[in-house]
Amino acid sequence: MLQAYYARGMEEPAVFEFFVRRLPAKRNFLVAAGLEQTVEFLENLRFDETAIAWLASIGRFEPAFLDRLARFRFNGDVEAVPEGTVCFANEPLLRVTASLPEAQLVESRLINLVHFQTVIASKAARSVLAAGPRMLVDFGFRRAHGAEAGVLAARAAYLAGFTGTATVEAGRRFGIPVYGTMAHSFVQTHFDETAAFRHFIECFPENNTLLIDTYDTLEGARKVVALAQGLRPAGIRIGAVRIDSGDVDELSRVVRRILDEGGCRDTKIFVSGSLDETIVASLVEGGAPVDGFGVGTNLDASVDEPVLDCAYKLQEYAGRATRKLSTGKETWPGRKQIERHRDRDGRLRRDDVVLEDDRIHGERLLAPAMRAGRRSSSLPTLAEARERAQRELAALPVALRSVTGQGQYEVRISPSIRELAESIAVQPVERSRS
Amino acid sequence: MLQAYYARGMEEPAVFEFFVRRLPAKRNFLVAAGLEQTVEFLENLRFDETAIAWLASIGRFEPAFLDRLARFRFNGDVEAVPEGTVCFANEPLLRVTASLPEAQLVESRLINLVHFQTVIASKAARSVLAAGPRMLVDFGFRRAHGAEAGVLAARAAYLAGFTGTATVEAGRRFGIPVYGTMAHSFVQTHFDETAAFRHFIECFPENNTLLIDTYDTLEGARKVVALAQGLRPAGIRIGAVRIDSGDVDELSRVVRRILDEGGCRDTKIFVSGSLDETIVASLVEGGAPVDGFGVGTNLDASVDEPVLDCAYKLQEYAGRATRKLSTGKETWPGRKQIERHRDRDGRLRRDDVVLEDDRIHGERLLAPAMRAGRRSSSLPTLAEARERAQRELAALPVALRSVTGQGQYEVRISPSIRELAESIAVQPVERSRS
Repeated sequence: MLQAYYARGMEEPAVFEFFVRRLPAKRNFLVAAGLEQTVEFLENLRFDETAIAWLASIGRFEPAFLDRLARFRFNGDVEAVPEGTVCFANEPLLRVTASLPEAQLVESRLINLVHFQTVIASKAARSVLAAGPRMLVDFGFRRAHGAEAGVLAARAAYLAGFTGTATVEAGRRFGIPVYGTMAHSFVQTHFDETAAFRHFIECFPENNTLLIDTYDTLEGARKVVALAQGLRPAGIRIGAVRIDSGDVDELSRVVRRILDEGGCRDTKIFVSGSLDETIVASLVEGGAPVDGFGVGTNLDASVDEPVLDCAYKLQEYAGRATRKLSTGKETWPGRKQIERHRDRDGRLRRDDVVLEDDRIHGERLLAPAMRAGRRSSSLPTLAEARERAQRELAALPVALRSVTGQGQYEVRISPSIRELAESIAVQPVERSRS
Repeated sequence: MLQAYYARGMEEPAVFEFFVRRLPAKRNFLVAAGLEQTVEFLENLRFDETAIAWLASIGRFEPAFLDRLARFRFNGDVEAVPEGTVCFANEPLLRVTASLPEAQLVESRLINLVHFQTVIASKAARSVLAAGPRMLVDFGFRRAHGAEAGVLAARAAYLAGFTGTATVEAGRRFGIPVYGTMAHSFVQTHFDETAAFRHFIECFPENNTLLIDTYDTLEGARKVVALAQGLRPAGIRIGAVRIDSGDVDELSRVVRRILDEGGCRDTKIFVSGSLDETIVASLVEGGAPVDGFGVGTNLDASVDEPVLDCAYKLQEYAGRATRKLSTGKETWPGRKQIERHRDRDGRLRRDDVVLEDDRIHGERLLAPAMRAGRRSSSLPTLAEARERAQRELAALPVALRSVTGQGQYEVRISPSIRELAESIAVQPVERSRS
C-alpha cells in the first residue's frame, strides 16, 4: 500500500483515529494506557540498512520506494486521551494527523501498543477497585504473551493502581516497586520446611514473606510461629506468610488465628494462586483477613477478556471526511473530541463525542501528545498517569464500580457527527473546514 | 532466592520439568512449540554491566552475589519434546538439569517462552484441521499482546500448518511466507472504489487481492468483474477478492456467482474478520466457496483459551526426588519420559508417562535439546517442526480432530512414578539412582 501511495504521490494529510467499537461483556469502562510507548515508537521509527537490505532481497519493492523508506520519519501530530483516563466505547482514544504514508505505516504497531496496555490497565483497575487499600502485586510475567507483554503488563497494572510487580525488568525500566517472592522449589530444596524458612530469614531479615503451603498450610503456619518465637529475642520478625493454594478464604482465617495465638499479630497474610478481581472482591467482602494479593495469569493475559474490539480508522483524507460502511463496522467520520460532563462532586456523568471544531463546554479529553513528530512537553509521567487513574476510579459512577455487575454509561454521538455521517452516506464528500 | 542459594553453596544438580496440569476445556490436544527460542535464551543469558550496575544501585544484593551474576552462564542440560509434537496434560514437555541456581533463575522466561508458543500452535492447529487444504494466513499482529507476541504467534501458527503471515518481521526473522493485504483505508483514500482497485492492480499486477466490502460487498464484486473485463486484453487477471465483514457464508456464494458469471472463474475468494476455527469449520462444512482465510485476533491472542495451566516444577535435588503437595497442585516426582503407543496405521493410541530409567518399548518423546549449555545438533529447524506437526495432526485419533467436540486421550502415569510419589508422601526421601 505504501509503495502505491508514494508512486502516485498520495501524500496529503490523513486523519486516523483509534477507538474501541464496544466494551467487552465483563468491562464497565476502560483505562487508557500505552501512549508513552506509542510516542516512543513514533519518535524512533526508522528502517536501518539491514532492514532495507532484507526488503530489497525479497524482490517485491522498487528501488525508489526503498529509498523513501530509508529516509522515513514520522513527522505527524498525535492527540490522545492521557494515560490513566477512564474511557468508553466509541470514544477516540488517539488521533494521528500525518501524511497518508506516515499515518498508514504506523497502524499495526500503534494498535498493538495501545490495545494491549489498555486491555491490562482496564483489567487491573477492577482488582484495584476490589482490593481497596490492600496491597496488590503483579505476579503474571510467566504466562504473559512474551517478554514485552510481561513488562508492559507490569507497567499497565501499576498505572491502574497496583502496588508493584515481581517482574524485576519492569522495576529497572519504569521504576515500579519490585516485590520478591519465595517459590515452592526453595522449600523443596531444603527438604525441611523450617530449615528453608530459617535460611530465607537469615538472607532477608526484613520484609520477608514465607510461603507456607508447599506441604500443609496450617502446619506451615505453626512452624512460622515456632520460628518467630525463637527469633524474637534477636529482634527479628516475620513480615508475612503467603498462601498459594487451597480454600484461601478458610485458610486465611485459620492461619490468622494460629499467628495471633502464637504472638505473630504483626505478621501479614498475603495470598496468591489463580486470583482475579472477583475472587479478590469476594475475599474482601467476606472479611477474610488478607492483607495483600498476588495476581498473576488472569491479569497479565487478561484471561476473561484478552482483547478489545478496536480499530484505527481513516476519518479524513486531503481535507475530505470519509467513512467505512462495512456491515457491523460502520465508522463515525471527522476529527473528533470527547467532552466529559461531571456531577457537582466530580463524578463522571456523561460523555459527548463531538467534532473537534464544535463549541465545547465540558472537559476536553484529547490533548496534544506529539507535534510534527516530537513529543509534547505536557505528556504525563507514569506517576502522574497513576495519580490520574486513582482520581478517575474514585470518580466512577457507583454502577460501574462492581466487578460482578454490568453498568451502563452514556456516550452521546453529537448531532454534528451524525449530520456529517449522513452527508457521506455512500461516497465521501468534500467537507468544508471551518 | 538465588542470593540465598549461592550464600549457602546450594549448587547441587536440580531437575525441573515443565508440564501442563490440565487441558483447557476447548483443547483436545496441544502442539509443543517455543523450544527454539528457549534454547536461544539459555545460550545467550548474560547479565551485562548495565544490568549489574542497576541491581547494585537498588541496594538489596551483596557484592559477592553480583559478582556471581556477572559470571552467570547456563551450563545445564535440556531434554524436550520436539517442536510440532502433539502432546497432552501431565506430560513433561521440557526438562532442565542444571545446578540449582541455573535451573531456578531461568524459570520465568522459560515458562513465558514455551507457554505462549504452545498456546498459539495448539490454537492454530484447530484452524489447520478445519481448513483442510485451503489457505490460512495469520492476520493477528495488531491485537497480539505486544510485538514479541505478534512475531512469535506468526511462527507458532506457521509451525502448526498455517500458509503464512501478514507480519513482515516474521518473514524476515523466520523465513515465513508473507502475504500483503489491502486495507479499507486504501479504498477510502481513493474516494472512488474502482479507482482504488485499478491503482492497486497497477502496482501489483500479480497475486493481488482486492478488498471489496468497504461500502457494499456485492457492488464491490461487480466492480471487480467490470475491471477484470477491461484488463483481460492486457493479460492481467485479478487474483482474489477479500470479504472482511457481514454474513460471509451467504456473501461468498453470491460473490462467487457474480465472479463466475462475469468470467472471473479463476479469481479466488479470501475471507477475514473475527474468524476462528469454528467459523472456518462451519464455512468449509457448509460448502461455502471460500479459498482462503485470514485469521487474526482470535489466533494471536488465543481468545477462547489465552493461557494454559502449566508449571515448571522441581522434581529432584541433589539426587533426591521431591514433590510439592499443595492442594490441587500436587506434582509427580522424578525424571520422566513419555512413551507413545500407536496403532498399526500410525495413529496415536495412548501415552505412558514413565520414569526416564524405566524400560520403554514405544516411542520416546523427550529428546536432548542442550548439553552443558550448548544446543544439540539434532534440534529441528522450523521447516522440520512444521512437517512433524503435519504428520502428527494426520495421526490424531478421530475423536480429537473436531473443533467443536471434546475428545479424550489416555495418558497413563506409570506404576513406577506412583510408587515414587507414595514413598515421599509428606517429606522427600533419598532416591536410589539406578
